Amino acid sequence: MVDNALSPHGGTIVERIEEPKKAKERVKGLPQIAIRSQLAREVISIGYGYFSPLEGFMTQTDVDSVVKKMTLASGYVWSIPIVFDIEERELQELGAKQGDTLLLTYEGNPLATLDIEEIFSYDLDVMAQNVYGTKDEKHPGVRRTQAYAGRFLGGKVTIVNPPKINPPFDRFFYPPRLLREEFSRRSWKRVVAHQTRNVPHTGHEWLMKGAWFEANADAVLVNAVIGEKRAGDYIDEAIIVTHDILREAGYFAENIHMTSLLFWDMRYAGPREAVFHAIVRKNLGCTHHMFGRDHAGVGTYYDPYAAHRIFEELPDLGIYPVKAFEWFYCPECAGIAYEEQCGHKEAAQRFSGSLIRSIIQDGVQPPRLLFRPEVFELVMESAEKYGSGSPFVTESYLDRGDPVITVPAL
Amino acid sequence: MVDNALSPHGGTIVERIEEPKKAKERVKGLPQIAIRSQLAREVISIGYGYFSPLEGFMTQTDVDSVVKKMTLASGYVWSIPIVFDIEERELQELGAKQGDTLLLTYEGNPLATLDIEEIFSYDLDVMAQNVYGTKDEKHPGVRRTQAYAGRFLGGKVTIVNPPKINPPFDRFFYPPRLLREEFSRRSWKRVVAHQTRNVPHTGHEWLMKGAWFEANADAVLVNAVIGEKRAGDYIDEAIIVTHDILREAGYFAENIHMTSLLFWDMRYAGPREAVFHAIVRKNLGCTHHMFGRDHAGVGTYYDPYAAHRIFEELPDLGIYPVKAFEWFYCPECAGIAYEEQCGHKEAAQRFSGSLIRSIIQDGVQPPRLLFRPEVFELVMESAEKYGSGSPFVTESYLDRGDPVITVPAL
Repeated sequence: MVDNALSPHGGTIVERIEEPKKAKERVKGLPQIAIRSQLAREVISIGYGYFSPLEGFMTQTDVDSVVKKMTLASGYVWSIPIVFDIEERELQELGAKQGDTLLLTYEGNPLATLDIEEIFSYDLDVMAQNVYGTKDEKHPGVRRTQAYAGRFLGGKVTIVNPPKINPPFDRFFYPPRLLREEFSRRSWKRVVAHQTRNVPHTGHEWLMKGAWFEANADAVLVNAVIGEKRAGDYIDEAIIVTHDILREAGYFAENIHMTSLLFWDMRYAGPREAVFHAIVRKNLGCTHHMFGRDHAGVGTYYDPYAAHRIFEELPDLGIYPVKAFEWFYCPECAGIAYEEQCGHKEAAQRFSGSLIRSIIQDGVQPPRLLFRPEVFELVMESAEKYGSGSPFVTESYLDRGDPVITVPAL
Repeated sequence: MVDNALSPHGGTIVERIEEPKKAKERVKGLPQIAIRSQLAREVISIGYGYFSPLEGFMTQTDVDSVVKKMTLASGYVWSIPIVFDIEERELQELGAKQGDTLLLTYEGNPLATLDIEEIFSYDLDVMAQNVYGTKDEKHPGVRRTQAYAGRFLGGKVTIVNPPKINPPFDRFFYPPRLLREEFSRRSWKRVVAHQTRNVPHTGHEWLMKGAWFEANADAVLVNAVIGEKRAGDYIDEAIIVTHDILREAGYFAENIHMTSLLFWDMRYAGPREAVFHAIVRKNLGCTHHMFGRDHAGVGTYYDPYAAHRIFEELPDLGIYPVKAFEWFYCPECAGIAYEEQCGHKEAAQRFSGSLIRSIIQDGVQPPRLLFRPEVFELVMESAEKYGSGSPFVTESYLDRGDPVITVPAL
């Protein structure tokens, strides 16, 4: 039996980052493979220990155990397969076999090495059904699974060339060790994580404030998921800077709030993704994780509060789920009210992301009780600066390559 | 060593209430003594078990232990002496001695018996200095102590004639056993107590809402202290009905809020009184107790957060102190904000009890964000109904006798 309550997950922070000068010698002559952005983000997350205890991409026994039992083969809880997929044809061209080391390049430059421990296939239907509870290809996670190339490479990853994180993301890049040091410097012992992929309205603000109470927390860690975007999403730049302005503009006191990021392509796996988020934030040093309505869900695949219940079936993960319901505007209370506390259900004006988006799309400033003016200004500024005038993801935003991660020449 | 975490305090609910028909026979011919309202309230609180494990008024060893060590002689934490004082002259007239039983009457009718276990004196300076941390007679608790008659009677109390609680108080009278049954019927496992002697403004409302989060509570129990009043206080009728209307008017959901009362004359003993409040509310079945700024304090005798710290020096009392700071109106946040969360300290508009009172005194309705219109209406209605037109205690209110407790003929 392993102790799932150990923090970091598995007991130690994985850090697989080689000194570039040393690495330069080692990687000479290695067969090279260019990886897509999803894999680059996962390589970075593995190398810096966000995914501790993972030291690399999963081998077949781990994948099978994660898919069917929601644990690694070692027994540690893990809910989402982290796999490196490759076409059989490409594998042939590389002539790569078990025991070989590959050099993974991103945007033309070396990022990391992958020691091939195993080359295997896995039934993608089984993976999709178990991870997502459905094989429906309308589910974006299922689609991602079904799009995997035919073969997987399992094995350890070592970053050989630390990526450069571009503004405005750079100041929010706190890998686990660094963030834990920062928490310690600030004497934060109890920190509640807030998962986000949204520009915050006051409903989000109160989710965090309520969770802070519920966790008896020293602080809230906003951890924004930065990864693949869909048309219509807020652009990542707007998301991260607006969360940070909530504190700078005083909606959170200076000493109880911090903004950070996680490189990750949303799987929309609902409860399974909630477990994954909990583990990653535990690795970041958080003691609590807020889960709201339909956490990491999509469409109607999951019960809105499935993520609240999945933790009851799991061993103590060493990070406590704070189960939040909805905050809304209540004209009777004359302010923001919490679903479980307010008796004016019929008067409740629920936050509508799409309504707020449509207001913003028109360049109109929503009322400050619903949407902070400083947030609105920054959304507009980010639209100009990063979104070709739009705060929402457009085709041209998607086409401009990776604006976040730059891998320099080694 | 005793287990202070046992709930009720001491392990069992004291209930010393005799069947009136049986009692009627027993009390025939007993020497009678008319007691003042403070003692009547304490007799009721003892008899119904609010003060468990006390079965009566304290003997000298208990008093001395409480005064000097903040525990009963048995070792259970107890912070305020509960004593029955009597003039030496009256004792002589009664011819009462150790081993005798007295019949205590209130408003001319039999209320309870007191078995005299001990007749003793105690140094009132020592009592005042230890309980209140001062001998200053400007302190109302010190004044109360110095006003005690020269002798004390220690011994068990038995209610022989259950008092009638008058409207509007009757529906809030839930002695410990009854209240615990009610909690159980409602499936409330975690209940946070809110001490009050005020008509609630939204600052109070949020103190309760915040404490509900912090305690991860099923519900808030408002427990209004009903006892001796001072000119300028809100009248008790207004206090209790306005707290209850907060739920009826939907500011609290039906299933998370309940109003109740405690017969007790405030001692204003600051941290010591906080401990007393905690023990009484634990007896009522609460698992948590909210302590705000200057809990049960008066003037500048106590550090505003002394009540937050005293529990750290005590064993586990089986009721968890929820330590709350201030809520205020923040125009930047456009709503009620919490001191520890809001970064706009300079913009904060703190609730001023005296400002709100002066507005109400003039019959003007404060804004609904600060003071609920339903509360305002009820304050005005209570003023007409119970306060001769004033929502605040006046000389004529004080002169009208005990409007709360009626002892019928036995």
